[in-house]
Amino acid sequence: MDQVYWNREKETMDPAVRAQQILRDIKEQLHYVYEELPFYRAYYDEHRFHPDMVETLEDFTRKVPVLTKDALRLEQEAHPPFGRYLGFPAEDGVHVHGSSGTTGRPTFYLFSKQDIAYIRDVMAQALYTAGVRKRDVVQISTDLGMFMGGWGALWGAEEIGAACFTPGAGNAERHVRMMYEVGSTVLVTTPTFALRLLDTARSLGLDPVRSPLRLGIFIGEPGAGIPGTKAALEAGWGIKAMDCATTSEMTPWATNVECEERRGVHVLQDEVYTEIVAKDDPQRPLPEGESGAVVYTHLRRKGQPMIRFWSGDESRMSTAACACGRTYPRLPDGVYGRVDDMLILRGVNVYPSAVQRALLEVEGLGSEHRIVLTRRDQMDEATIRVEYDPRLSEGGAPGDDRLKELHDRTHAHLRAVTGVRFNIEFVPPQSLERFDVKARRVIDQRSTS
Amino acid sequence: MDQVYWNREKETMDPAVRAQQILRDIKEQLHYVYEELPFYRAYYDEHRFHPDMVETLEDFTRKVPVLTKDALRLEQEAHPPFGRYLGFPAEDGVHVHGSSGTTGRPTFYLFSKQDIAYIRDVMAQALYTAGVRKRDVVQISTDLGMFMGGWGALWGAEEIGAACFTPGAGNAERHVRMMYEVGSTVLVTTPTFALRLLDTARSLGLDPVRSPLRLGIFIGEPGAGIPGTKAALEAGWGIKAMDCATTSEMTPWATNVECEERRGVHVLQDEVYTEIVAKDDPQRPLPEGESGAVVYTHLRRKGQPMIRFWSGDESRMSTAACACGRTYPRLPDGVYGRVDDMLILRGVNVYPSAVQRALLEVEGLGSEHRIVLTRRDQMDEATIRVEYDPRLSEGGAPGDDRLKELHDRTHAHLRAVTGVRFNIEFVPPQSLERFDVKARRVIDQRSTS
Repeated sequence: MDQVYWNREKETMDPAVRAQQILRDIKEQLHYVYEELPFYRAYYDEHRFHPDMVETLEDFTRKVPVLTKDALRLEQEAHPPFGRYLGFPAEDGVHVHGSSGTTGRPTFYLFSKQDIAYIRDVMAQALYTAGVRKRDVVQISTDLGMFMGGWGALWGAEEIGAACFTPGAGNAERHVRMMYEVGSTVLVTTPTFALRLLDTARSLGLDPVRSPLRLGIFIGEPGAGIPGTKAALEAGWGIKAMDCATTSEMTPWATNVECEERRGVHVLQDEVYTEIVAKDDPQRPLPEGESGAVVYTHLRRKGQPMIRFWSGDESRMSTAACACGRTYPRLPDGVYGRVDDMLILRGVNVYPSAVQRALLEVEGLGSEHRIVLTRRDQMDEATIRVEYDPRLSEGGAPGDDRLKELHDRTHAHLRAVTGVRFNIEFVPPQSLERFDVKARRVIDQRSTS
Repeated sequence: MDQVYWNREKETMDPAVRAQQILRDIKEQLHYVYEELPFYRAYYDEHRFHPDMVETLEDFTRKVPVLTKDALRLEQEAHPPFGRYLGFPAEDGVHVHGSSGTTGRPTFYLFSKQDIAYIRDVMAQALYTAGVRKRDVVQISTDLGMFMGGWGALWGAEEIGAACFTPGAGNAERHVRMMYEVGSTVLVTTPTFALRLLDTARSLGLDPVRSPLRLGIFIGEPGAGIPGTKAALEAGWGIKAMDCATTSEMTPWATNVECEERRGVHVLQDEVYTEIVAKDDPQRPLPEGESGAVVYTHLRRKGQPMIRFWSGDESRMSTAACACGRTYPRLPDGVYGRVDDMLILRGVNVYPSAVQRALLEVEGLGSEHRIVLTRRDQMDEATIRVEYDPRLSEGGAPGDDRLKELHDRTHAHLRAVTGVRFNIEFVPPQSLERFDVKARRVIDQRSTS
């Protein structure tokens, strides 16, 4: 018989009691990093911060300086390979991984046996929250290489006792065929690759709704938190699509995870403490519900712990009750933007994910698009290049009337949602390249045009 | 302080005592598979074999029918996905993998928690025998996907407590750069990819002899057992190159492994019992030293155990003492051929690995070649297409005299080693494609020409 919770007492705890526990953990962790990790000692001294200055959770936000990726990179360059925040002798490390920087030196992670045991347990709680059970076959359709995404999922699913199936990198056709052969019930991958596998299954003459899958756990991109994408994944595969993940620096990175109610991601605050702060002031906490920058803190990891890590993500938080009974707060819309990915078009802030959301709401459009930015006479031009629905071209290319009407609806809806007048350009179905891993839909030609 | 052995008592046991233990394990395993696994019951009944018929190790060879890959494939097709030799309820499986068939349905492996614990322990013994220690950083430069190679190495290295670094699939440049950044001391990969990484390191202006590597563990191909390839790997990287591996069906597949004496691979007979039998009669044992087909048996695995698995590999065995003190027998030349990969050219048996070995012995040749087979007037023609040494083209393309002399020496040496008159065709250095994973050097155009 299935239990609802991985750990009932922990997950349904009175939030006020949990907050006291979090504060105790924060204080202990601050003293640990200050006393044991030379990088933090130097960093905090430089910022005139001392752990004794934190008496409340608000003190924590207001007084502890945030860490950026850049600070980690510089520290590792100065003290290679792992920086002076490792927390154990390097020879006790058992797994080396890296951040997903595509160029240059990544930030390296070294995990001790103790850290991995800890990570396995938290990842198990997270995947269990999303619905993974011992009887499942969990297909992990990501490269198990440098990057942490697949590994965390593997470790959590192993801990639950599910069967893990790892078809390896690339080769969408193999991923699909093996899914049916092996009988995978859970798919872990990026939303982009899951959509690609959907196309592949159909092109192989398979009916994805009848696949053995019952659950998708989507990582690496905010897709499963975007209503249109979530709906496309759920209807396409006949599954529940669960949004999940923080960022690899925060491994166990699945501490933002959806429960079966799917009302946004629960935030496992007692493992990775998550704050929403002003985008332009990491020392300023925001009231519940306001949109801001996400800052993360490891409460228990002793190896390479991150204290107030500036993720660059944007979200808002809610403490409203969830029918699942878990008393963790939620990010009701998941992570919906990047503070630093935000586009500014003629003075208006536009998130690419908002554009994607809006396009998915327009009847008659296909599933892939680009946002092309150019500059003319010192003015930014923004063009949406979008595929039209395959059904429009049944019996030949769609007529001008049809496209004109679609153009006007698309333009109006985009303007209503984003406040920006976009140029609209239609292209045939399947003419835009699909992405295997992370989608790169913004094509910025402003410096070259 | 380093110990020499992972398990001194086991590794240095009197071979006669070990043989008694092996016989006991074989009898127990035969009764287990016959009574618990319907596939074996049916197979043995059909061959009129019963476990009670085995009283000696010779009985085992003479009376137990061998298993082929084809038999496993047919069984899994009839009883998908794992066949009736699983040995535990499918829901107790925790890892799904597959054989490395490049086309069609692979054979699937499902491992239970118990099997993985067992595999980890044996893989640790094998890697420890090859010289891996807790202080090492083990870079596993293979795809961690369907196939077992990387996974076994990972599990064994984790068990030893070494740090595992997995740079992922493809991208030779990243593998090399990260090796230097992370400080990898052990490289696990195919000989082919290790040679490719060597070229990559040089092209990046790095000196491979000064890399952090001290040890290479070579899997997936017989390369590190071929003297010329072993020497190229050792001199190129400044490492000890260890040959290792059986085949994925026999996971823990590293039970053939070199010790630091490097006098061929030790055979861990008390885990995977290994026989050398006549190539045309799997029921006929061969005397020590004779070249024959290799047949493997799991003595302890309870999930998907292989009993007398016909690997298709060719080797010979020696029980001569090894200076390391281990009392396991050895395959002094490793696995040097495939019974079924053997080429028959004008009535002569030729192993591609023998050609490779001969070419590496000719001064003036480069490091890559092809064997091109064509047919003219009902006669097989065999052409060796081989790169010449880069030093020959210093100051312009090599002269005809130079190439004529090289041609004659190559032709004569190949004929002496293989008994075949090959056509020789020279191509410039680096003009033949390098292989990332498994080399495919035989180009058979006999059906099309």
